[in-house]
Amino acid sequence: MSDSKLQVVPLGGLGEFGMNCLALRYGDDIIVIDAGMMFPDAELLGVDIVVPDFTYLEDNKEHVRALILTHGHEDHIGGVPFLLSLLQIPVYATAFTLALVERRLEEHDLDHEPDLREIKANDRLEIGPFLIEFIHVTHSVVSCVALAIATPLGVVLHTGDFKVDPTPLDNQPFDLHRFADYGKQGVLLLLSDSTNVDRPGYTESERAVRPRFEECFHRAEGRLVISCFSSSIPRLQQIFDLAAEYGRKVALLGRSMLTATELAHSLHLLEIPDSILLRPQDIMQTPANKVCVIISGTQGEPMSALSRVAVDNHKHLSIREKDVVVLSARMIPGNEKAIYRLINHLARRGADVVYGGMNPPVHVSGHGSVEELKLILSLVRPKYFVPIHGEYRQLFRHAALAQSLSYTGIRECFVLESGETLEIDRFGARKGERVTVGRVCIDSGSVDEVVEDIVIRDRRHLSEDGFVLPIIAINKHTGKSETLPEIVSRGFVSLEDSAELMQEARQVVARTLENSSPEERTDWGVMQEKIRADLKRFLSKQTSRRPLIMPVILEV
Amino acid sequence: MSDSKLQVVPLGGLGEFGMNCLALRYGDDIIVIDAGMMFPDAELLGVDIVVPDFTYLEDNKEHVRALILTHGHEDHIGGVPFLLSLLQIPVYATAFTLALVERRLEEHDLDHEPDLREIKANDRLEIGPFLIEFIHVTHSVVSCVALAIATPLGVVLHTGDFKVDPTPLDNQPFDLHRFADYGKQGVLLLLSDSTNVDRPGYTESERAVRPRFEECFHRAEGRLVISCFSSSIPRLQQIFDLAAEYGRKVALLGRSMLTATELAHSLHLLEIPDSILLRPQDIMQTPANKVCVIISGTQGEPMSALSRVAVDNHKHLSIREKDVVVLSARMIPGNEKAIYRLINHLARRGADVVYGGMNPPVHVSGHGSVEELKLILSLVRPKYFVPIHGEYRQLFRHAALAQSLSYTGIRECFVLESGETLEIDRFGARKGERVTVGRVCIDSGSVDEVVEDIVIRDRRHLSEDGFVLPIIAINKHTGKSETLPEIVSRGFVSLEDSAELMQEARQVVARTLENSSPEERTDWGVMQEKIRADLKRFLSKQTSRRPLIMPVILEV
Repeated sequence: MSDSKLQVVPLGGLGEFGMNCLALRYGDDIIVIDAGMMFPDAELLGVDIVVPDFTYLEDNKEHVRALILTHGHEDHIGGVPFLLSLLQIPVYATAFTLALVERRLEEHDLDHEPDLREIKANDRLEIGPFLIEFIHVTHSVVSCVALAIATPLGVVLHTGDFKVDPTPLDNQPFDLHRFADYGKQGVLLLLSDSTNVDRPGYTESERAVRPRFEECFHRAEGRLVISCFSSSIPRLQQIFDLAAEYGRKVALLGRSMLTATELAHSLHLLEIPDSILLRPQDIMQTPANKVCVIISGTQGEPMSALSRVAVDNHKHLSIREKDVVVLSARMIPGNEKAIYRLINHLARRGADVVYGGMNPPVHVSGHGSVEELKLILSLVRPKYFVPIHGEYRQLFRHAALAQSLSYTGIRECFVLESGETLEIDRFGARKGERVTVGRVCIDSGSVDEVVEDIVIRDRRHLSEDGFVLPIIAINKHTGKSETLPEIVSRGFVSLEDSAELMQEARQVVARTLENSSPEERTDWGVMQEKIRADLKRFLSKQTSRRPLIMPVILEV
Repeated sequence: MSDSKLQVVPLGGLGEFGMNCLALRYGDDIIVIDAGMMFPDAELLGVDIVVPDFTYLEDNKEHVRALILTHGHEDHIGGVPFLLSLLQIPVYATAFTLALVERRLEEHDLDHEPDLREIKANDRLEIGPFLIEFIHVTHSVVSCVALAIATPLGVVLHTGDFKVDPTPLDNQPFDLHRFADYGKQGVLLLLSDSTNVDRPGYTESERAVRPRFEECFHRAEGRLVISCFSSSIPRLQQIFDLAAEYGRKVALLGRSMLTATELAHSLHLLEIPDSILLRPQDIMQTPANKVCVIISGTQGEPMSALSRVAVDNHKHLSIREKDVVVLSARMIPGNEKAIYRLINHLARRGADVVYGGMNPPVHVSGHGSVEELKLILSLVRPKYFVPIHGEYRQLFRHAALAQSLSYTGIRECFVLESGETLEIDRFGARKGERVTVGRVCIDSGSVDEVVEDIVIRDRRHLSEDGFVLPIIAINKHTGKSETLPEIVSRGFVSLEDSAELMQEARQVVARTLENSSPEERTDWGVMQEKIRADLKRFLSKQTSRRPLIMPVILEV
């Protein structure tokens, strides 16, 4: 038998929210599961998206056999263009997931044709030493799979994102039987979604939003405007069905909403009732109580369709009194203020805004709660367990939950964060060497526009107290400064207040120049540092602020 | 009878969260109710606190008779030092509220001795045409009052912040009887707290946290560390009581926690069991299961005691495995990410962190939910109603709630935002003229350090794409630029990438100079604008970024 070991190498999404990416290595073969992105923290100023640092995969380029995607959410596929710009590998996913990936790839210039290969639930696929079976799971998007990966050492089961929805809208339930089969045969390692480990009980079925939606369709005297994630195809289906029932036409606003419905429709995953669609330009010409608008922008993203509607700056929709606006999504942490601002604007325009927690719910999660996590642990009863998809607090709690289920016979749980690896061989499992991981910040969606840490650090400094630049013109013949130094500043103090202060600051710089020895003056690096230090002390004393100070010396 | 009118002038806290401040004017007399602050949005870069623009009060200086404070929370008293630096007026409040105000005033240099006057619930106070009665209400802090203000036109009832706690910890219930009395006699105008209008049912009593706290005292094998707002005296009382019961000593960490407990203790509002206090420096020398720490920093504030403990950077407390950390506070919108970061750090150190929604609760709100708001509306049944304390969406919903209670006979509800006034005379009520309002941004707690909008706008711009400064040295004799322009930049692109780009940018500026007519060159304002425009076009094309560009021209 082989003496090779199995390595689990999380490159993103463990100990952080988003940009899920995990490599499995056995001997000389590596497969990659998911390649997601995350939306940046507010502290990453000016950064648009963040993807994992793929150095580990680049360094092992010749061993990487394939990328396998569990489903089509951005935190699982948003990094695909960046990964494919580094590695030419085949990408396996269900038809809907691949279609979303293709759209993303169209926005980027890859120098090679992507090799996209469709798989279906129940398919089996052999890649080197790995025999992968795709298992249907339920989640908030359609066509999601878990992966059962047979290796020479045993089976690794990766759940992807899931909830156990007993009544999914497409009547394709979570394939609990395959999970049970694998549990019976014995599973070496379970990797399971930790997103909702903080939530007690069961997550409600997608169908649970229907009563609230019905109530909104019933109640809205004006237009009914519903915002949800564009990839939530089952939710869109429910809205289309109710619109047909209540005699409202449906208009779609927002590019992502159009794309997702087109893709899902063309793949027969979304049924659009006959002649129900309304062109956006006809919204305001149609009787308000005959209109339902599905619109993107649940997170208050500033350029989204809903944000523009909220400030009455959308060419096709203007909110009036008696309109009902429904936010059918959770608030992603960090977005609360933007979302509340959006709601305030809509309320000011007279809309009745339906949002937040209520019973029956206006939104249900796509991730399983504690009882579903226990169900999976109980069915699979693996030898080893690694919680995935979550911040540290969530992984930690998921591991504790698994440990508390003593009847499952789980031998050991490992809380890994991105970059920490797990090694399994015939002697057991243990943490292995760390690999390089990190966050690569992208300014505007193009592969080239990686923002360096130093630039972000400067931006943060600038954002707090602005900058002050003393500019000293030096006569290159005499080596002397013949005029008083100039000082320019922005974001520091307002101009009215600063005239006197800046005048004094010029004197401070001039004094620093005068009081320097001839030796010092020949080294402009030293002079810059002296000027910076003196000016910093002066400004900090006068204003208690610490602007970025950057002396500029011009030879003229 | 008087022909004067009553004016309601909200200066802060209506249509926004925090910095509550409202003026009532009758004829030539003005009283001010509360003068709060708000914590700034993340977009207000580098700003520490925000207070209302008091221009209206300054413009009417000679008419302002008093400031009356309903309770001691920062969003009601945090602006007092700034208001008192503009106006010398007496401040009326309960002893505990005044004590907190005094502490705040100590941090500022007022040029006059503040005139602080203690009142008690049930006191009556005549100020000009206003006869004010203070009515005890329950909230998360002690010594809170509502105000019943008799005016020549009728009674104005201002609730302050409240919930209707049937079992308050100090056994001083909400004075529903006085509210009922006023309702019977007839109330002209009700101003009522809207904070929790989104929450159905009743807010639980402060006592509802006790079972969860008991469970934590019981469960913690190591230290029990509890964080809550320092002003939540009833919560502190419960922790002290349980600590005595479970045989743990109590240490207090965080300046605000020390201040609040000292003040409350000295005013006999907090009973501290004998010899229960533990000095912070003795925490780590005491057996872990005999220690309870009360610590400030529930919102993940970066310099708070709890944040420092989380990264193991506090001199008196180090978290170990088996410690239990309890976050007994809500997450204020905007703080979620910082709080989750805090929890992740604590979990990494092995702590069992108790936070978020659960049953029994680990935190209860201090604000009344829908049923309590209805109770107040039903008891007071005013002629006019203005919802206060909330964003627009909350005020709007509170007004709709009032309108739905037709049996109360409310004649009219007005949704006012800060700056919108209400006028009442013997003919009725209507919106009046707008007054100047706004947010004054303060950089570091000193009265002088007001940050202008323009500075914040610059900081925001700088934070997104940094700055680029072309510097052109002009010979003042010849009027010509004799060297290639210099360009300095920060926060734009990293230095390695930018060498070539900056070289090209210098050429762009040089070309702009060359291609300008002699007339243009005599006007440096025009030249700066031309250079800015050309460089902006060039950089935007090359990098898709829009740094702040600021041409500097030096005469040498």
